[in-house]
Amino acid sequence: MSILVVGSVAFDSVETPFGKASGILGGSAIYFSAVASLYTKVNLVAVVGTDFPMERLEFLTDRGVDTRGLQVMDGETFCWAGRYNYETNTCENLDTRLNVFADFHPVLPEGYEQSDIVFLANIDPDLQYEVLRQVPQARLTMLDTRHLWIHDKRESLTTAIRAVDVVTMNEGEARAFVETYGTLTAAKAILNLGPKVVIIKQGEYGCAMLGEDGYFSVPACPLEDVRDPTGAGDTFAGGFLGYLDKVGEMTPQSTRRALVHGCAAASFTVEEFGIDRLRSLTLEDIVGRYQELHQCTHFEDE
Amino acid sequence: MSILVVGSVAFDSVETPFGKASGILGGSAIYFSAVASLYTKVNLVAVVGTDFPMERLEFLTDRGVDTRGLQVMDGETFCWAGRYNYETNTCENLDTRLNVFADFHPVLPEGYEQSDIVFLANIDPDLQYEVLRQVPQARLTMLDTRHLWIHDKRESLTTAIRAVDVVTMNEGEARAFVETYGTLTAAKAILNLGPKVVIIKQGEYGCAMLGEDGYFSVPACPLEDVRDPTGAGDTFAGGFLGYLDKVGEMTPQSTRRALVHGCAAASFTVEEFGIDRLRSLTLEDIVGRYQELHQCTHFEDE
Repeated sequence: MSILVVGSVAFDSVETPFGKASGILGGSAIYFSAVASLYTKVNLVAVVGTDFPMERLEFLTDRGVDTRGLQVMDGETFCWAGRYNYETNTCENLDTRLNVFADFHPVLPEGYEQSDIVFLANIDPDLQYEVLRQVPQARLTMLDTRHLWIHDKRESLTTAIRAVDVVTMNEGEARAFVETYGTLTAAKAILNLGPKVVIIKQGEYGCAMLGEDGYFSVPACPLEDVRDPTGAGDTFAGGFLGYLDKVGEMTPQSTRRALVHGCAAASFTVEEFGIDRLRSLTLEDIVGRYQELHQCTHFEDE
Repeated sequence: MSILVVGSVAFDSVETPFGKASGILGGSAIYFSAVASLYTKVNLVAVVGTDFPMERLEFLTDRGVDTRGLQVMDGETFCWAGRYNYETNTCENLDTRLNVFADFHPVLPEGYEQSDIVFLANIDPDLQYEVLRQVPQARLTMLDTRHLWIHDKRESLTTAIRAVDVVTMNEGEARAFVETYGTLTAAKAILNLGPKVVIIKQGEYGCAMLGEDGYFSVPACPLEDVRDPTGAGDTFAGGFLGYLDKVGEMTPQSTRRALVHGCAAASFTVEEFGIDRLRSLTLEDIVGRYQELHQCTHFEDE
């Protein structure tokens, strides 16, 4: 069992009402791997510049993450800066310097093509599709996206969506992609493009899933201290796919459980800046919060 | 078994992206009674002007609502006008003419003081407290409020909150009252004032409840067509208290079921303008949607 993740590695600078951090390790591939590696073997594909200190990845390689797919290119590593207000569901982009990420072209080292599950983080949908064609035997494929691609590359994104099993988007992205104000309407329209499952991330309100099993909704874990929402969506994906890879089957009930694992994993991410909380995170922690989510959503049938 | 409701009767004018309606029957006491009367006997206290056509209340008296507590005062009935945008969780106030409602002073007709449950809709907290003192034997009391009272009558509102069993507020109101951006933090602070249960209404995201049983969260019913959010909160209260009056006991499980009944009831309200959908609503309809909510939130424990 193993998961291939293709995404970004970045230096992040983040401001929230609760503090700030500068030049910290970030990027979708990092957040995803930090959680998914608690469940299964992760094969990482991303790019960094020659300025990137490789020792920063030790906590991932210690968890068995295969980083042979991390390309080092001449130039600087992708930098991102953002600011969150009290409304943690929206982020103000302060600065994006793609640097070497602008010329990123995913290359799969030998063996990666055998990955059971593929997660395509929110990179260019043309690259997402290119990767998909290299992993035809994958048991399960999932993509994330972002406003930039919805706006600039709608056709490419639609092509990639048609080719994957699971699509995950933030609620605002799904509404923008479908050009509707109804979340359920948006999810249905995306499902009609071909995927088996559509997951709508709702930030502090949790997430909703639509698929053959119908509609399913999970709240976010009730938290008093949310310090930095960065990476919540990628760690959600790490918990969701990590769980599905570990249990080895995608039934209606295992898919629901996977979604709750994703929410539980994301709830830790936001408690500290960057990946700070994830360094010491264990599968037992996630299972504990899974049980809390069960406790705070369970009610008897009529 | 019976419920006393003290609230408003109004002429509403509402605009949403999906249509508009002018001079339609509205007000918290109307919405609440329309749903609670499907479960139990409702005793209504409110005020109208001499311009109010009493036959508009026939659908409520047909459901057994006691309207002896509806005062008719010289002057015009309370008028409210509002506009909702696509963000159905926020409403722009266009016009508020309190008219006779400005001099409203609740008077309980004989027998009303025997009501088992009391719902104090979002009227002046001084009036809420005045009513509470007239129903010392009530098994369960609950109040709702609004931004106006949080802003203008914080002390009076705090006194009323200390005197009831259940407090319900919109999420934004709870955050404003406690002056925090964390919903859980707000709920805890309100609970510390004395009530047994605090319910935070989250609009299209459902609602959350905090009490001795811990935290409990229910999503809103997934809907494609939301035409008019007016009255959702009052019909939520009608389903919640109606159910609790009908089952006659407030256990952790019955309280959770009551919250789901409230969400189910509110989901019908928003499907049509004003009270249109409520005229034909049955308890069986609500139970059907309760079961849908169970189906779309249930997952197995680890």
